[in-house]
Amino acid sequence: MRATVIQAPHDIQVRQVPDPVIQRSGDAIVRVLRACVCGSDLWAYRGEAAREPGQRIGHEFLGVIEETGSEVSGFSRGDLVVAPFVWSDGVCAYCKDGLTTSCPHGGFWGTPGSDGGQGEYVRVPFADATLVGLPAEAAGDDHLLAGLLTLSDVLGTGHHAAVGAGVRAGATVAVVGDGAVGLCGVLAAKRLGAERIIALGRHQARTDLARTFGATDVVAERGEAAVAAVRELTGGEGAHAVIEAVGTEQSMRTAVGITRDGGAIGYVGVPHGSGTGLDLGEMFGRNIALRGGVAPVRTYIPELLPDVLSGAIDPAPVFDLQVDLDAVPDGYRAMDERTALKVLIKL
Amino acid sequence: MRATVIQAPHDIQVRQVPDPVIQRSGDAIVRVLRACVCGSDLWAYRGEAAREPGQRIGHEFLGVIEETGSEVSGFSRGDLVVAPFVWSDGVCAYCKDGLTTSCPHGGFWGTPGSDGGQGEYVRVPFADATLVGLPAEAAGDDHLLAGLLTLSDVLGTGHHAAVGAGVRAGATVAVVGDGAVGLCGVLAAKRLGAERIIALGRHQARTDLARTFGATDVVAERGEAAVAAVRELTGGEGAHAVIEAVGTEQSMRTAVGITRDGGAIGYVGVPHGSGTGLDLGEMFGRNIALRGGVAPVRTYIPELLPDVLSGAIDPAPVFDLQVDLDAVPDGYRAMDERTALKVLIKL
Repeated sequence: MRATVIQAPHDIQVRQVPDPVIQRSGDAIVRVLRACVCGSDLWAYRGEAAREPGQRIGHEFLGVIEETGSEVSGFSRGDLVVAPFVWSDGVCAYCKDGLTTSCPHGGFWGTPGSDGGQGEYVRVPFADATLVGLPAEAAGDDHLLAGLLTLSDVLGTGHHAAVGAGVRAGATVAVVGDGAVGLCGVLAAKRLGAERIIALGRHQARTDLARTFGATDVVAERGEAAVAAVRELTGGEGAHAVIEAVGTEQSMRTAVGITRDGGAIGYVGVPHGSGTGLDLGEMFGRNIALRGGVAPVRTYIPELLPDVLSGAIDPAPVFDLQVDLDAVPDGYRAMDERTALKVLIKL
Repeated sequence: MRATVIQAPHDIQVRQVPDPVIQRSGDAIVRVLRACVCGSDLWAYRGEAAREPGQRIGHEFLGVIEETGSEVSGFSRGDLVVAPFVWSDGVCAYCKDGLTTSCPHGGFWGTPGSDGGQGEYVRVPFADATLVGLPAEAAGDDHLLAGLLTLSDVLGTGHHAAVGAGVRAGATVAVVGDGAVGLCGVLAAKRLGAERIIALGRHQARTDLARTFGATDVVAERGEAAVAAVRELTGGEGAHAVIEAVGTEQSMRTAVGITRDGGAIGYVGVPHGSGTGLDLGEMFGRNIALRGGVAPVRTYIPELLPDVLSGAIDPAPVFDLQVDLDAVPDGYRAMDERTALKVLIKL
């Protein structure tokens, strides 16, 4: 089969690789219909996260069951399914708690020995626990498929941030970061009943989309100026709930600065940089909580899926560029150069 | 009147100072019956927190109402009351949320312009909102008064940490720090239904007290060895809820290391040191939350008071040395040299 690999920083290739086969009785092979490029893939692309030469890449996909192991009972050949960005066994203590990302038998697509999402097929371990079924008729609906693909990562991750930030009905929420996760954070905050949603971002196309998703205010400033702007919008107090969807020291510093005393930061931006950006003295004095991390999106899919299917929320517009498998390297380039927000791969 | 001042690091004096007078109609003057020395007072004592020469000190006290301003309606001369370690107006948005420590009109006893708790009298702003009445008969019960005095800070602070850490019935809790706050954290965790409480500490008298308060296990190691010991006690997973009651980078690092994936650290140790001790990458990957800060103990007193009065919890043993006002400097010395856990001042 053909799949995307990262040969070296800035060197994405689509190559012939071995077809996956069932290795364990709980495996399924999924033929990928849609995949996409994640902001976190760019850390590998830019050489800021280490990868082996030729390592597979891509962790978001949906597709059709091609083959199942002997013990797979929940799915059959032909079923339409979406995969969360990690697989998990579904039976361990962490999976039972809903923290599928801490499953000791879990793993991340594209790590050595596993298939990446940006390829023709993926072997899915613990298929019954990992995959979630989608209605067959969605397969014919390009727009809906794009929305459903966000269940694989960015929508669930935005939701995780909103939950971590303690978004409640009537809350004032601020969202740091106008990437796909930040935008899905806006959507998730709106869905959870936030009354006011302040989106921080400098790219008008993205902040326009944030408004479409439910943002009531946009702050284009950065750093101290952004803190001042959010405080001015909130009577000096800051936001009850802050979604941090970037992961840099500066974004974390901004997040602390715009959180209301007693509020919380839901952080889902993968931390990079040597420090934290957290002023613990300020957080202590103002009782600001920090809650989040890698999102157990598998746990959230059953809650979010009905709203995507019904159209109550429509995350599909986070994709603003579509490529085929051959053009995946172009997709990375576009995202790296920020000419694309998020790239959909149609196989 | 006579009150304790800090003239310089390691120079605590008991001096004649002006008698407090009612300045605003909501003020009350309290004649102090019991006060105490806090671990956080030692940061000033050791020169690690700046104080003006001759600044008042002490923020934990209970006593009897001596005089009230014209608008004080909840208390009369002779009433027995306990004061939380900050005063607050009771009417602002933060006070209504229970976050009395963020009250814009609030303040900390002993800051310039206010009385400290370690003196004969204290002028209490917003007396109706700040003070909590105690039953008159408690005044004759030395042991009970000691227990009630902990409502002023350490018991409420330990409770804040337990709440921040998400202690629930059946939880496994670990407590970093064997000072009075850590010990009150043990008491609070037990009260909230923790099934297993692992106390980390090296001083046997203190860890013995932790066992009296409800600790089921004691870990005397520090650093990496402490992390390994807690993990061994918890099947490799760590504790659901971790109370951090020290505030150093090392203690925070230990707290992160012993928290179970998806768990939370309730932190109430005043942060000191230039860094945070937080490995945000580890917290992210394991979804560890951080929640806490300066404790709004005023909010907690109504919940904790009945259990202290009934004897359901007895925090009095955190005091292991009693002095009179003249001997307060000896009390500081004893706590600084760790020959005393916490010093009670009987006036």
